[in-house]
Amino acid sequence: MDLECASQETVKQGLLARGWPPIKGFSKHVKTKVLEFFSHLIKLGQDDPRRVVHSLKAGLALTLVSLFYYYQPLYKSFGVSAMWAVITVVVVFEFSVGATLGKGVNRGLATLLAGGLAVGAHQLANLSGRIGEPIVLGFFVFLQAAVSTFVRFCPQIKARYDYGLLIFILTFSLISISGFRDDEVFELVHKRLLTVLIGGSTCVIISVLLFPVWAGQDLHNLIASNMEKIGIFLEGFGDEYFKMPEDGESKEDRPLLQGYKSVLDCKTNEDALANFARWEPRHGRFQFRHPWKQYLKIGALTRKCAYRIESLNGHLYADIQAKREIRSKIQETCTIMSMESGKALKELSMAIKTMVKPFAADIHIENSKSSVKNLDTLLKSGLWDDETDLLEVVPVATVASLLIDVVTCTAEIAESVNELATMLKFEVVEPTVSPEKPETGQPKIEIS
Amino acid sequence: MDLECASQETVKQGLLARGWPPIKGFSKHVKTKVLEFFSHLIKLGQDDPRRVVHSLKAGLALTLVSLFYYYQPLYKSFGVSAMWAVITVVVVFEFSVGATLGKGVNRGLATLLAGGLAVGAHQLANLSGRIGEPIVLGFFVFLQAAVSTFVRFCPQIKARYDYGLLIFILTFSLISISGFRDDEVFELVHKRLLTVLIGGSTCVIISVLLFPVWAGQDLHNLIASNMEKIGIFLEGFGDEYFKMPEDGESKEDRPLLQGYKSVLDCKTNEDALANFARWEPRHGRFQFRHPWKQYLKIGALTRKCAYRIESLNGHLYADIQAKREIRSKIQETCTIMSMESGKALKELSMAIKTMVKPFAADIHIENSKSSVKNLDTLLKSGLWDDETDLLEVVPVATVASLLIDVVTCTAEIAESVNELATMLKFEVVEPTVSPEKPETGQPKIEIS
Repeated sequence: MDLECASQETVKQGLLARGWPPIKGFSKHVKTKVLEFFSHLIKLGQDDPRRVVHSLKAGLALTLVSLFYYYQPLYKSFGVSAMWAVITVVVVFEFSVGATLGKGVNRGLATLLAGGLAVGAHQLANLSGRIGEPIVLGFFVFLQAAVSTFVRFCPQIKARYDYGLLIFILTFSLISISGFRDDEVFELVHKRLLTVLIGGSTCVIISVLLFPVWAGQDLHNLIASNMEKIGIFLEGFGDEYFKMPEDGESKEDRPLLQGYKSVLDCKTNEDALANFARWEPRHGRFQFRHPWKQYLKIGALTRKCAYRIESLNGHLYADIQAKREIRSKIQETCTIMSMESGKALKELSMAIKTMVKPFAADIHIENSKSSVKNLDTLLKSGLWDDETDLLEVVPVATVASLLIDVVTCTAEIAESVNELATMLKFEVVEPTVSPEKPETGQPKIEIS
Repeated sequence: MDLECASQETVKQGLLARGWPPIKGFSKHVKTKVLEFFSHLIKLGQDDPRRVVHSLKAGLALTLVSLFYYYQPLYKSFGVSAMWAVITVVVVFEFSVGATLGKGVNRGLATLLAGGLAVGAHQLANLSGRIGEPIVLGFFVFLQAAVSTFVRFCPQIKARYDYGLLIFILTFSLISISGFRDDEVFELVHKRLLTVLIGGSTCVIISVLLFPVWAGQDLHNLIASNMEKIGIFLEGFGDEYFKMPEDGESKEDRPLLQGYKSVLDCKTNEDALANFARWEPRHGRFQFRHPWKQYLKIGALTRKCAYRIESLNGHLYADIQAKREIRSKIQETCTIMSMESGKALKELSMAIKTMVKPFAADIHIENSKSSVKNLDTLLKSGLWDDETDLLEVVPVATVASLLIDVVTCTAEIAESVNELATMLKFEVVEPTVSPEKPETGQPKIEIS
């Protein structure tokens, strides 16, 4: 018996042992995934703590409008219509003030307009008798839905009034159809409009008063930081390109210069922020009619510069590099061109950030332009001897030529930043230390 | 009297004459704007007639679900809840099948999940008495709204389940709050779920059965046409760059080659289409688990090539052009490189469009690669004499170098298109005429 028991136990343990690993493996997999997800969420919160604040604000707004249900006197006057206040809060409350205001205004105006038209449609349909009514109503619903849906394809309208058109279709359909069952259409429109207004204003008030997130400020920072990223690349480029990699060291080990990559694809983001910013009232240093278009212009020029830098970056890590002797001939001028353009861009970025007139940027641009001229002179003077392999000159010439393009782009960016500075009357602050002209003897390769 | 009358009339006419112009001007301005808007709408319809069809489909779907109100037996079973079917149609019906399906599934699942949890929350809150109930409910609403809003910031979730989370917040709040006033919570959830399902399936059925627009097909076409646009530029580039502008003719007069510009900024569009396409069932030549990621990879490589082309384009219209003698030395090889890369890209684009294994693309790529080698040999042989101004060599060298980059990019694109061809088992069709190797004597500059 003892033996039998023991052997049964062994079999059991054996089965468990055989059965366990896959289950254990699966539960371990799930555990890892869940932990990964949570650490990802924590990182999202750390990257931008405003996200946490926004989530709490959204919870608060929703809890506030749900008082319409809990508090008897409020519920008495609105009844089930209070639902529309809750729905409005859920769909209108957005991350930035501009987006919330835009959606709120769209929803309010669309409800008003669609409600009015639906009452008219209801009256017209009423005239056509019990059998004709659904036909007339159906026709109106079909017509407005088809027309409004088509108008939503128009890019200019989509950018600013897409949500309004959606709500227009929704409200017109709901009110005019409901009118078939309930003759108190006017009462319906009135209640719906009022609850939408209450929900919308709750969102706007919370969004403006509690730790507001301004889309305008975000656009402002995005434009400045994109310019800075390109500046950082350019400041580091000369040093990185002309340095010979030491043994066992690969150039690709340094991701420091890859920050500019994000600039290539941020047009959609910039456009969206500018659209939201247009709804925002005066806040801090931003007026209601702030020249957001100028920001987009600067952004487009920065992106144009980033395309050139993408080509330059390809040369940084190219397999075939020109020989040291060939590169060293233009090292100085190219390094100055790149470094000075980078400094100018960082200066311009700082000028936007602080809204102070860029002081030294023009000097840096002048320096980079005079390096271009130096390069011209160098090249004219017959830089490489006749023995030089032209094949090896090509990549170096390309880098030089791309850098000349970058200098041109930088000058264009500086011009449009200066336009912005004039439009917004940037402060003029005299710097305490004036930036020096670079010495032509030795390139300055310190990174500030 | 007569005189007085006449003078009064003159005054009146004078006033009218003075008052008219601004009103006339304003009404003329409005008329122009309205006409402009209508012609813009007509153009939108002509550009893509599927937009008109979609608008009619949206109208039809909405008219169909409004039958729930008009038809007595249906209204009897759903009552005012039929409203949810109408709302669902308005917000779920999207342009492509994938977008509609994605939103429909999100809405359905989120309503089910949130409804279930809200019933649980209602039961829990019921236990805490009349005074405790709103507090417990408020806490639940706040908690779920804050957590769900935060999770929406997660990019991977935002891409596919953003709408689901919105509906989750909405449904949970509505049902749990309504439970405070109406104990028939289960009935409420049941009706809401059923109407959402009816609305959602109306959308999906109409969207699939009547002239379906597949996001997958659109992505497929977009990737192919982007490649073609770049191919067109490259085919025309050599001709355009090496041609000397005739008197009074500006190079910028030809917008033919500017089609590639739209490729630079279409990442967002591609990502959105791929997200929609993932929801789509098997259709035509596309399976359910079609390798959309591979399309995105090809798209990214095409964009990388477009960045190089943006730099090339800058040289096309540069103020300073190298002298004819300098350019002519490398004209032949560069024209072949550009032309053959362009042909390869057009071939690859056609291969994707027709889903036939690219046949001649490899030959074109080999041709372009051998031109690169020819260029190397040319450069090694000491192409320009010692008198040549190096300054004038730089732009030409840059164009050559950028074209070499483009050849590399094209080879990468070809490789990933071949991967796609293997994944999807593209048809193999023997061409009737085999493409010839380019003659090295004369560059072929005919544009096919």
